[in-house]
Amino acid sequence: MRIALDAMGGDYAPEAIVKGALLAAPKLDKEDEILLIGKEDIIQSLLQEYGYTGSNIKIVNATQVVEMGEHPTKALTQKPDSSIAVGYGLLKAGKADAFCSAGNTGAMLVGAMFSVKAIEGILRPSIAGLVPKLKGGYGLILDVGANADCKPEVLEQFGELGSIYAKYVLEIENPKVGLMNLGEEEGKGTVVTQAAHQRLKANTNINFIGNIEGRDMFNDKADVIVCDGYTGNIILKLAESIYDILNEKNMHDPFFDKFNYEAEGGSPILGINGNAVIGHGVSSPLAICNMVKQAQKMVASKLSERFKRNYSA
Amino acid sequence: MRIALDAMGGDYAPEAIVKGALLAAPKLDKEDEILLIGKEDIIQSLLQEYGYTGSNIKIVNATQVVEMGEHPTKALTQKPDSSIAVGYGLLKAGKADAFCSAGNTGAMLVGAMFSVKAIEGILRPSIAGLVPKLKGGYGLILDVGANADCKPEVLEQFGELGSIYAKYVLEIENPKVGLMNLGEEEGKGTVVTQAAHQRLKANTNINFIGNIEGRDMFNDKADVIVCDGYTGNIILKLAESIYDILNEKNMHDPFFDKFNYEAEGGSPILGINGNAVIGHGVSSPLAICNMVKQAQKMVASKLSERFKRNYSA
Repeated sequence: MRIALDAMGGDYAPEAIVKGALLAAPKLDKEDEILLIGKEDIIQSLLQEYGYTGSNIKIVNATQVVEMGEHPTKALTQKPDSSIAVGYGLLKAGKADAFCSAGNTGAMLVGAMFSVKAIEGILRPSIAGLVPKLKGGYGLILDVGANADCKPEVLEQFGELGSIYAKYVLEIENPKVGLMNLGEEEGKGTVVTQAAHQRLKANTNINFIGNIEGRDMFNDKADVIVCDGYTGNIILKLAESIYDILNEKNMHDPFFDKFNYEAEGGSPILGINGNAVIGHGVSSPLAICNMVKQAQKMVASKLSERFKRNYSA
Repeated sequence: MRIALDAMGGDYAPEAIVKGALLAAPKLDKEDEILLIGKEDIIQSLLQEYGYTGSNIKIVNATQVVEMGEHPTKALTQKPDSSIAVGYGLLKAGKADAFCSAGNTGAMLVGAMFSVKAIEGILRPSIAGLVPKLKGGYGLILDVGANADCKPEVLEQFGELGSIYAKYVLEIENPKVGLMNLGEEEGKGTVVTQAAHQRLKANTNINFIGNIEGRDMFNDKADVIVCDGYTGNIILKLAESIYDILNEKNMHDPFFDKFNYEAEGGSPILGINGNAVIGHGVSSPLAICNMVKQAQKMVASKLSERFKRNYSA
């Protein structure tokens, strides 16, 4: 498989990205390749500087860069040779099996919609966040920021998308889907979550276990946590801040260490015609390496094909 | 002042409540009284059992109890002599300056609306949660569950209500008001938060500092955090679960210890004609004691009168 990696995206690009590729390369299968996308001369000299002698990192030249603060749609229109545009071009053409970037999140999302596009039948693709679980392993929360407002039918579909990811990438048998809410009773919540509850309950494709509450985030109640992107974004950033505070206080624990964004590396975009992962802006080499490994898992589990099959029926 | 306390409300009532009253009594001023509301014979025998010999705990008989799982409106209608109904009766008649209960949250809220009622001009009274801050002290988040869906003008008013509480009860000079959102830029968020942002920005009664994110919950950016009750409830319960997890792992720290609900005791209802505090269902004697102390502070700072004055103009 070929995993495209945006060498120019992220606060510490291109150095941290190239270093991350070097960490990931030996962990891939022999026939796998990492395609580093960006300014060829810069990447080439970094690979030399870091003493790279392998053969499974290739460079794909892209002369432009979408900056972190740029307006996504404008940037992608004005910069057709940016690393993000080129990355999605490779994904669309089948020249890459996955595309990863720690760059401009909005541009990554807009780029997906412009190039590989949403799978037919998907109302709104979603960015999912990985949630460390107390029993070990990870669960999934979606959406975490792509869709601030969500209609009930969109939340229902998030339950389906998340279930497929949980089953095939996280390898959770019959994943439990919970609707994030302010109470367990099905009449509780906003107008939207009340309606979403009924739809999720009636959906026979998923294992809906009902409403969950904020306190259930890390326990075993649900593997897939459904909420709108406004709520999911707040929850995810709150959890990250807890890790930062514990770290500053020098309080360490294997469970809380998994709150570190570096542990998993990225947030997958679910529901598009291809595998894409968005990394944290501050991604370190370790985070980049883990994002590549996550993308590899998504490709190996045929995630995008499974989504397509599910919605083409 | 007289602080009414529901002796029958809470998972460990009446024992934990009576014990809490005994802890609080010596901490009040000489002329202050705690009015324990509930079944007189039971309370009397508990006070005897615990060796109470003071004079500032009085009993007010109430023959009925609203159970934790009961439907709030139905329960209050069918149980006019319940401790919650009697407590609000005292508050309305001016025979108590504050009313505290760790009982049925919905009944506490409905009871307020039935008896003392919302202050004229208040769109939706709100339950506020106290947020421990890294720099020390507390901030406020509202709403935390009274109003799942909120219109922009309701969120704007939460900013005002929270500012008054922060200024007079938490004694924060010119409290900073932040709107919980998924990004700092003012165009970010849901349709409602985008509109609320503009209203809060234009409001000259408050010190609005803009959007804050999930990661800003515990830092110094905002003293008053505005959000709908769906979001606030999830955030608060998530934070509580972090405390529980740390506690189980035997990880202790003065900052995180303040996540323990016992530390402050209760969540005030803001925007009603009277001072009311709702305690956690699992309230321990310490939590009850702290809830009474919080009510005392609310009364001493003339909180309810300040709200009334603010909206009668």
